[in-house]
Amino acid sequence: MIRVGDRVLVLTDDGSRYLITLREGSIFGTHLGNILHEEIIGKEYGDTIKIGRSKAHILKPGIVDYVFNLNRRTQIVYPKDMGFIILMLDIKEGDLVIECGSGSGSMTGAFARYVGSKGKVVSYERREKFLERARENIDQLGIGDRVEFKLKDIGDGIDEKGADAFFLDVPDPVPYLSEVLSSLKGGGRLCVLCPTVNQVQSVLESLNEKEVVDIEVWETFIRKMKTNPKRFRPEDRMVGHTAYLIFGVKVSRGGEKYEE
Amino acid sequence: MIRVGDRVLVLTDDGSRYLITLREGSIFGTHLGNILHEEIIGKEYGDTIKIGRSKAHILKPGIVDYVFNLNRRTQIVYPKDMGFIILMLDIKEGDLVIECGSGSGSMTGAFARYVGSKGKVVSYERREKFLERARENIDQLGIGDRVEFKLKDIGDGIDEKGADAFFLDVPDPVPYLSEVLSSLKGGGRLCVLCPTVNQVQSVLESLNEKEVVDIEVWETFIRKMKTNPKRFRPEDRMVGHTAYLIFGVKVSRGGEKYEE
Amino acid sequence: MIRVGDRVLVLTDDGSRYLITLREGSIFGTHLGNILHEEIIGKEYGDTIKIGRSKAHILKPGIVDYVFNLNRRTQIVYPKDMGFIILMLDIKEGDLVIECGSGSGSMTGAFARYVGSKGKVVSYERREKFLERARENIDQLGIGDRVEFKLKDIGDGIDEKGADAFFLDVPDPVPYLSEVLSSLKGGGRLCVLCPTVNQVQSVLESLNEKEVVDIEVWETFIRKMKTNPKRFRPEDRMVGHTAYLIFGVKVSRGGEKYEE
Amino acid sequence: MIRVGDRVLVLTDDGSRYLITLREGSIFGTHLGNILHEEIIGKEYGDTIKIGRSKAHILKPGIVDYVFNLNRRTQIVYPKDMGFIILMLDIKEGDLVIECGSGSGSMTGAFARYVGSKGKVVSYERREKFLERARENIDQLGIGDRVEFKLKDIGDGIDEKGADAFFLDVPDPVPYLSEVLSSLKGGGRLCVLCPTVNQVQSVLESLNEKEVVDIEVWETFIRKMKTNPKRFRPEDRMVGHTAYLIFGVKVSRGGEKYEE
Repeated sequence: MIRVGDRVLVLTDDGSRYLITLREGSIFGTHLGNILHEEIIGKEYGDTIKIGRSKAHILKPGIVDYVFNLNRRTQIVYPKDMGFIILMLDIKEGDLVIECGSGSGSMTGAFARYVGSKGKVVSYERREKFLERARENIDQLGIGDRVEFKLKDIGDGIDEKGADAFFLDVPDPVPYLSEVLSSLKGGGRLCVLCPTVNQVQSVLESLNEKEVVDIEVWETFIRKMKTNPKRFRPEDRMVGHTAYLIFGVKVSRGGEKYEE
Repeated sequence: MIRVGDRVLVLTDDGSRYLITLREGSIFGTHLGNILHEEIIGKEYGDTIKIGRSKAHILKPGIVDYVFNLNRRTQIVYPKDMGFIILMLDIKEGDLVIECGSGSGSMTGAFARYVGSKGKVVSYERREKFLERARENIDQLGIGDRVEFKLKDIGDGIDEKGADAFFLDVPDPVPYLSEVLSSLKGGGRLCVLCPTVNQVQSVLESLNEKEVVDIEVWETFIRKMKTNPKRFRPEDRMVGHTAYLIFGVKVSRGGEKYEE
Repeated sequence: MIRVGDRVLVLTDDGSRYLITLREGSIFGTHLGNILHEEIIGKEYGDTIKIGRSKAHILKPGIVDYVFNLNRRTQIVYPKDMGFIILMLDIKEGDLVIECGSGSGSMTGAFARYVGSKGKVVSYERREKFLERARENIDQLGIGDRVEFKLKDIGDGIDEKGADAFFLDVPDPVPYLSEVLSSLKGGGRLCVLCPTVNQVQSVLESLNEKEVVDIEVWETFIRKMKTNPKRFRPEDRMVGHTAYLIFGVKVSRGGEKYEE
Repeated sequence: MIRVGDRVLVLTDDGSRYLITLREGSIFGTHLGNILHEEIIGKEYGDTIKIGRSKAHILKPGIVDYVFNLNRRTQIVYPKDMGFIILMLDIKEGDLVIECGSGSGSMTGAFARYVGSKGKVVSYERREKFLERARENIDQLGIGDRVEFKLKDIGDGIDEKGADAFFLDVPDPVPYLSEVLSSLKGGGRLCVLCPTVNQVQSVLESLNEKEVVDIEVWETFIRKMKTNPKRFRPEDRMVGHTAYLIFGVKVSRGGEKYEE
């Protein structure tokens, strides 16, 4: 049963999506008319309410809804990349995951979810306003206790050692790579997210001289199809680019040389 | 420290990958020469061993290594789709996830991992040999206790109710959709994997008459880049198709009409 | 030297593109200020003019500029598909090419160009307004004499026989396929453009029972890159879909069976 | 009617393709059995012959067959790029097109075809064996008279001025760009084909300081679909990369600055 304080997704008949945190006596305005929070409280997920002459479904927001509803100042990590990063970094229950920077908290939320209640995420951010924004966003997801935010430039040192995975998403990643690797355990996994090819090239140059193996660079794409089975076809437009994803595994000695 | 019984990934200098379960006194043959298991036991992940004149790194196999090393009789779900499915089905700690069929256990393993130790996966398979193979594969991943395999055609009924998510990967999905939806809780999420467009069309026709909203169909692509920073470019070949992914959310009343 | 009556492309410093047919004493208004046609007449292609405080380059419009500047009522065939169709239909000097319908004249223009001055394009269109629009567009390209427009439904018969290539772009292509094939010479090539998968499926069903071989279905994609070499990366958005392209070759006896 | 000396494409029932130049009294061996050239001579395109117990169709080879049957030592330009290059370079009847190097003659053949009988292609190649190979290939296409091959490094000068289009496909394009531009007329179009991003970056750096506008960089992709309408879906594998295509237009003064 849905209660006061729950965060719900209202999906209207015309496909609009509203995320609402339920409060007693509150009203939420939509383009179709007002919703009294009372109409939702006590309902079950999957139930239907009326908004004016339309109706809407009450759903539990998922991680994808979370990501697209972030209060944000920065570019976010999109679902097309997020799931692939989680797999390739081999995130699992109980892991210690470090990220830098926090950004708007999109990957922070995904990491926090998949390390589970026994895991921990440490998120470094040197800009206070971004850190506060990311923290608020994570609290919306209800798993803020798994995340420790640190207001610090990792160039001044990473406090943790023996991390299972590190996610590096900063404008100039190369100067941080040595410190990042020193925080990983042997066999720990690294992902560097780079919007431009130039960043990828300089990260590859640097990783090549470091104790890293299994270096791979990937791009991901997703394409949405229209859902009319009588006129089945892809959507006209798609996302052409978000970022290149560089992966590698830390080893204790020797590294990898690329070759053609 | 690596112990007897552990499953390790041996990554050789020339990029070959071997998955080995360590036994006392055993020998593993590679194209570069033999490896005595004793050489690995007692080492740390990330350490280096010698094989003949070459060397190799000892790593902990990840979920992606698991998927690509499945002992299999069937098409597997590839990492490009796997991460996206986990996100879109909103899999999280403690969830009850049902799948049909087990296939070779690739999605079974991913679900088992991401529901965590408090979650549960029920995997239906009507072909005994496939079920046994999938079970063996999951045991390799070390989280077999989270998975209950059932040798049963779900056309004869699904025993569970109130599932958080259902993953349907069978040659002819339409006849099962009603039963699948009845096993989901309100707001529970469905994914149907379809290699052909014809399957997608008939699933969409059927879902349109059922209590399902937020229906989406996606294709995913990944492209690997070569890692020489002096000659940076994509690989010559890529995977062009695995399957279409249909997603939807179960509601208690009314559904969704597609429209252009 | 550029003369009265020439059609020029004005490319401003900020990347705007204007197509102008030069007339004595005329003025053309842009967002940067007015251009007197006299300022362009007498210049050479590649020369620069001033518009207010900005400058602009005078270029000769190409076939791609033509396509994107069509006065149009219909979906056009985009450059990503157009070049591939020209190759796959093996269009060459002296060919007789038939198309139906004319649409806005985008493929008409491309065919007219590549059959050369000795070739001929016959374009069937049953809606008079579309036909007039297409004819005006082709005249802009200056090769209208190579194109014969016919106001006729090809269901009532195609007048020509022995065509080298046929391009069919109509909402419901199947009823026309027999008539289309009868107009092609032996070894003549067919392209059917289908926005939806359903159309592709029914065309394939039909072609399979006809005297057609070498049947192929393709999708094309193009992705634009940003041109700053210091921050090299793809554009954020791309076209996800225009149409599926079906190709085949007419034979005199027997046809092709698809197989898995 | 097909005559001695004609070049035909034999397409067998199982999809194999053989290109044969017909000679009196000759025999051609295939995996299905022998074909007597006499059986083809006198037939019409689109006719059927028997090979052992199978049958085959006699077709006229198209430009795409030509490209894939080049006797070659080098990477060729693939159809997915070829049609797009022809459009973007605005190749038309009567054009003067210069290319360097000749490679195996794949683009040479496409240019020769689309400049028509009144046009001319000049193809520079500094390696004699490649030049001879390209010349033989073009002769197969039957339009060798439109192409002048020159055994020369364009670093030593390009003899022609006022070219309509230039296609540059060499391992290190930057040193040649000034000479290339000097051979183009005002408004003439340039395409530089670059397999690696590093080449693209250095070409962009260089073009930015030159008299070039409308600079664009594109990637093209094509995906083939399986043709069984009952199980419609894309092929499993596709080409992931051939090359990046850089385009620009020569102007007489001033150039283009990239901007974000």
